[in-house]
Amino acid sequence: MDLTATTSDLASAAAEVARLLPTRVLDPVLAGLVLRAGPSGVELSGSDRERAVRLSRKATVHGEGAVLVPAKPLAETLRTLEDPQVRLVVEGSRLAVRTSNARFALPLLDLGAHPGVPALPPLVGRLPAGVLAAAVLPVSGAASRDDALPVFTGIRIHAAGERLELIATDRYRMAFATLPWDPMGPLDVLVPAGLLADVVRQPGAADQVAVHADEDLFGLSWAGGSVSTALLAAPFPDDRVRKLLEAVIDSTVLVDADALAGAVRRATPYSGPHGSVTIQVDDSEVRVRGSDPQSGESEESVKATVDGNRLTKSFQARYLADALKAFSGRRVELRIQEGLRSTVLTSGVEGDGVELTYLVVPLRTVA
Amino acid sequence: MDLTATTSDLASAAAEVARLLPTRVLDPVLAGLVLRAGPSGVELSGSDRERAVRLSRKATVHGEGAVLVPAKPLAETLRTLEDPQVRLVVEGSRLAVRTSNARFALPLLDLGAHPGVPALPPLVGRLPAGVLAAAVLPVSGAASRDDALPVFTGIRIHAAGERLELIATDRYRMAFATLPWDPMGPLDVLVPAGLLADVVRQPGAADQVAVHADEDLFGLSWAGGSVSTALLAAPFPDDRVRKLLEAVIDSTVLVDADALAGAVRRATPYSGPHGSVTIQVDDSEVRVRGSDPQSGESEESVKATVDGNRLTKSFQARYLADALKAFSGRRVELRIQEGLRSTVLTSGVEGDGVELTYLVVPLRTVA
Repeated sequence: MDLTATTSDLASAAAEVARLLPTRVLDPVLAGLVLRAGPSGVELSGSDRERAVRLSRKATVHGEGAVLVPAKPLAETLRTLEDPQVRLVVEGSRLAVRTSNARFALPLLDLGAHPGVPALPPLVGRLPAGVLAAAVLPVSGAASRDDALPVFTGIRIHAAGERLELIATDRYRMAFATLPWDPMGPLDVLVPAGLLADVVRQPGAADQVAVHADEDLFGLSWAGGSVSTALLAAPFPDDRVRKLLEAVIDSTVLVDADALAGAVRRATPYSGPHGSVTIQVDDSEVRVRGSDPQSGESEESVKATVDGNRLTKSFQARYLADALKAFSGRRVELRIQEGLRSTVLTSGVEGDGVELTYLVVPLRTVA
Repeated sequence: MDLTATTSDLASAAAEVARLLPTRVLDPVLAGLVLRAGPSGVELSGSDRERAVRLSRKATVHGEGAVLVPAKPLAETLRTLEDPQVRLVVEGSRLAVRTSNARFALPLLDLGAHPGVPALPPLVGRLPAGVLAAAVLPVSGAASRDDALPVFTGIRIHAAGERLELIATDRYRMAFATLPWDPMGPLDVLVPAGLLADVVRQPGAADQVAVHADEDLFGLSWAGGSVSTALLAAPFPDDRVRKLLEAVIDSTVLVDADALAGAVRRATPYSGPHGSVTIQVDDSEVRVRGSDPQSGESEESVKATVDGNRLTKSFQARYLADALKAFSGRRVELRIQEGLRSTVLTSGVEGDGVELTYLVVPLRTVA
């Protein structure tokens, strides 16, 4: 294998592959990056048996071939090189990364011992990357980061005809998004939220993304790359989660999401040992209140259009701030329900066809 | 107390005071910030018995007075406010931070129980803030962060007539700087390096800084603020440290500091389990080498002017990178000594009159 390429092109691809590969593995082959030079350029890929990623880059190929090298030092070396062009060439048992005045020699790992980078499952539909990202990013924020209950670390993706439905919940909040797509097959999967949020940003927003899935794998592909992951096997409590969306509304508040988020942020130092803030719905405003034995008290009003009962709810400041961030730059409708039933945040269908609903469970208020 | 001021002015001062105060104290009074409104504006100050800081800011004072409030929530509230102006007014047992649509009420702490913010020790000299920062910042990098041996966490500051001498060492490297100043009294102290590096950036580079010291305290003051700290009581091994500066030079290498630093950075992924890189002095270049059983090998040449013997030395990559950073943007002279004697880095007297010398101990090379 022998090729010359633009350093920054290779560096970004190597960094993405290295980032998706595990760093602590018993077998160094699993932390290896496959470089494959062919007539159309170079492909960088990697797989840890759960995830697989392939990225193509332009290159002038002097000699075709494929090698497996440690991903991290390759990515780190390409990242720190100052030369605009770099040559990758196999020299004996080494892959040499060469510039005019430097040579970095990475050991060749046994490509035969590598599990291989699995092919993508069948194509099930298409949509623009920007639309997918606009739905996945806020929804992934409601997923749990606690691997002890894997089902809550996933995003449920379900095709309902011309629309995709995305759901995630960590049991204290829930995000539900629907978005338009171009279906070509059935889709009903539970995908790791962290990985999905990571990869939806890789293609350009205007690029078309192809969605791939079967019973074991979920994948995305776009011009220049693809990624796939094993599905989460846990059964998602669809019915119970969807039931939460049937709101019995006590009061509706229409408010600028960023203005309310700012007030919640400023109340956070006063949110006390439980990190809670109180939202009091008043005539044409909401008052955000905090109270802490050490820091003192806070109260801030935010203009709002109120319809329904005047009432007071307490929330985990962090969860409310996360929910409002998903509606940044827009007006958001808070549909407040009675008692301990969730508060529903929504802003209707956006210009890109994404409709997002966010639920936050209120705190039991001290009487 | 009642005053109106520019939010950003107060916010920056409150943040600095909060940053220098301890966050975990048994007595909340020690984490308190003193606000004192007088005819010339407002002073924000704090002290934890070891350190003291005072910062003055312009304000429209409607009522003079002084209060003690928790520093952290005040700083956090001022930082997140969007209103350009803010009013601070005592209301009962609270200090209210008021804007047009919000009120934050901080509890008043017992100002009588506060140890007070000690006065600065006597003036011993003056110099421009930028010159002091140019010497303190690289020297502080050679001090230890390990509080177990306090003497190595300090910067030794000693007045030798018209020049100040700064020394710090963690025993594996040493930095020595001399700089011009305008002496007005004797100065021979050991000051915590971390604090000093923190505060030298506060005044503007062109501002004059007054240096204050006595047997117990060291302080700096400038238009708008002052800071003081208890001295480190440990005896600094002056003689042994200064003896290291008497170099017996085997080889002298003149090289661009950033070019060599870049090569060391790129060799770091190949620096092996001990994090070591090898510098081989050759005709008109130095070769930077790394070797690691997993990552592979690296070799990069950097153009240099070499005078003396051709030789090879190994260094801790991190220490060498730190040392070179102190000479960023300049050519640096490496004076390499025989065997395990330190390598001396120096670039002569700079335009601002600061002369910096940095010593790095080489590693025992594997034969």
